[in-house]
Amino acid sequence: MVNLNSSSKVLTEDEIHSLLPNIELLPLIEKAFTLYSNSQVQLPPVTELNFENPSGDVHIKCASVKEMPYYVVKIASGFYENPGKGISSSQGLMLLFDSETGCTSAVLLDNGYLTDVRTGLAGAVCAKYLAPKNITQIGIVGAGIQAQMQLKYLKTVTACRKVSVWARSETGLKKFLDEIDHEYWDITSTNHLQELAENSNLIVTTTPSQEYLLRKEWIKPGTHITAVGSDTPHKIELDPALVAHSDLVVVDSIEQCKFRGELYQMYNHQLTPKKEVVELGKVIRDRSLGRKNDTEITIADLTGIATQDLMIAQGVYETYLK
Amino acid sequence: MVNLNSSSKVLTEDEIHSLLPNIELLPLIEKAFTLYSNSQVQLPPVTELNFENPSGDVHIKCASVKEMPYYVVKIASGFYENPGKGISSSQGLMLLFDSETGCTSAVLLDNGYLTDVRTGLAGAVCAKYLAPKNITQIGIVGAGIQAQMQLKYLKTVTACRKVSVWARSETGLKKFLDEIDHEYWDITSTNHLQELAENSNLIVTTTPSQEYLLRKEWIKPGTHITAVGSDTPHKIELDPALVAHSDLVVVDSIEQCKFRGELYQMYNHQLTPKKEVVELGKVIRDRSLGRKNDTEITIADLTGIATQDLMIAQGVYETYLK
Repeated sequence: MVNLNSSSKVLTEDEIHSLLPNIELLPLIEKAFTLYSNSQVQLPPVTELNFENPSGDVHIKCASVKEMPYYVVKIASGFYENPGKGISSSQGLMLLFDSETGCTSAVLLDNGYLTDVRTGLAGAVCAKYLAPKNITQIGIVGAGIQAQMQLKYLKTVTACRKVSVWARSETGLKKFLDEIDHEYWDITSTNHLQELAENSNLIVTTTPSQEYLLRKEWIKPGTHITAVGSDTPHKIELDPALVAHSDLVVVDSIEQCKFRGELYQMYNHQLTPKKEVVELGKVIRDRSLGRKNDTEITIADLTGIATQDLMIAQGVYETYLK
Repeated sequence: MVNLNSSSKVLTEDEIHSLLPNIELLPLIEKAFTLYSNSQVQLPPVTELNFENPSGDVHIKCASVKEMPYYVVKIASGFYENPGKGISSSQGLMLLFDSETGCTSAVLLDNGYLTDVRTGLAGAVCAKYLAPKNITQIGIVGAGIQAQMQLKYLKTVTACRKVSVWARSETGLKKFLDEIDHEYWDITSTNHLQELAENSNLIVTTTPSQEYLLRKEWIKPGTHITAVGSDTPHKIELDPALVAHSDLVVVDSIEQCKFRGELYQMYNHQLTPKKEVVELGKVIRDRSLGRKNDTEITIADLTGIATQDLMIAQGVYETYLK
């Protein structure tokens, strides 16, 4: 860490990595959702820049919460040819500003890592509140950095160690299997997504797919699916009919999911949900709004909200200041 | 400067100050406007956060230009009670990212200074292309940091040294007069805005006023007015009738000025301009689109566009790299 002037601190990715184990992350991300659904939040629409050749998308998110000391601006990008250059596809940084003066408090040069972490944590929050009591197998769709993150944080909310993983890319899958902790996880890979779907009752989808992967007829009663991959109007991972016919759809932000993600895709296919869509923050505050029994099919559609960025950035910065 | 990792450079405000004199700034800002009006630009709408108690507004702007090496994200805030705390009301920073990978290239911790500079330069560009040939007196409305910046860069485009300044705040005005270079400028202050308006043929308005200051009947033929203060839907400095009845209205961005600034205010008063509104970038490329003679009243409405941020941030960073 270097004090560049009296007011702005710059934290490197290494410093951020070393601070994270000292932070109780899951409650921070739960709070991010309850704060958001409390409406004490300013959370403007996501700003996007899109690139071709090489293809990439950049999302700029920001949020302020009444009476919080900082507001956050977060830039997160996905440049999907990066791995071929030996660079993570996710890049970006988080910024904290003083809510009373606008002064730059902290620059977290995380190179996209904190976005990956808070998205992984959001998956764990969904599993905690929406998965069936007895998770028999976790199905992970995709084998990128987010697939790793999901498993990392699912560890903290479920005892299930049985995992099936599917990915379109053989090399991606190999890398994932090379890096995963085989001592902890009882993991198998499959070429058959249907098989994964039929044998898992907690499924997490983590791909940037532009056509849907999971079909309605593959999903057995009692399954919970968290879809984290689709965060633009073009990406989709779930059969729109699956979303429409599930017993419960939970989203991070009803407003944001009107314009991106699985819920947007479902509406775009002229379908409507079986029951009123509920925000995750409301389920966290009142579990009775969540899963009713072990036969319901529940879906969580996460597009990522900036209060998650605010809470994790603030958590890192306050831990650094201690 | 500190190399925090292989890819991100962080420049402090002091370093930025020391680099600026080595940069040909005016052509950079001219290019910012011509690039923008060339439509090779992605420039999403401004994102805003608003704060009460203390009151402040935060603008997040971003831009990418085809085939440029970087894209920019800029956060600029105005917290109007800051000066009472000994802090500039303008705060913020600029970020450059690699257009091919999304990696963070540079963090310019300018605390809002580069935004002030590029806005000052935009005023000079407007004067260069739109002011009458013979400037007899410069009228400066407001006495904050932007009033100083406007004069600083007007020096580079006009030989006129006669200035009249008006400000609502006596203390602001005193501070401005204390800090201005009296050797260079023949400066007088006035309590009568009408007098300033009637005796100046280049007027620059730099306030965050929420009711208009300059009346139509005060402005004499041949005057050019650059309005830089209003950059939100609530701020206004010019009588909407003055905008509507002027011979030419030039804006930085037609799209953006539909939603903020003087042109927005004019439309909001159900008025229409005498002639088609022209973008500054088009006037720079084709002077015949600008002032026709020395009797026209011309107006430039600047709300600030992110290609200005891109060009100045890139100029600073590339000069640093040399």
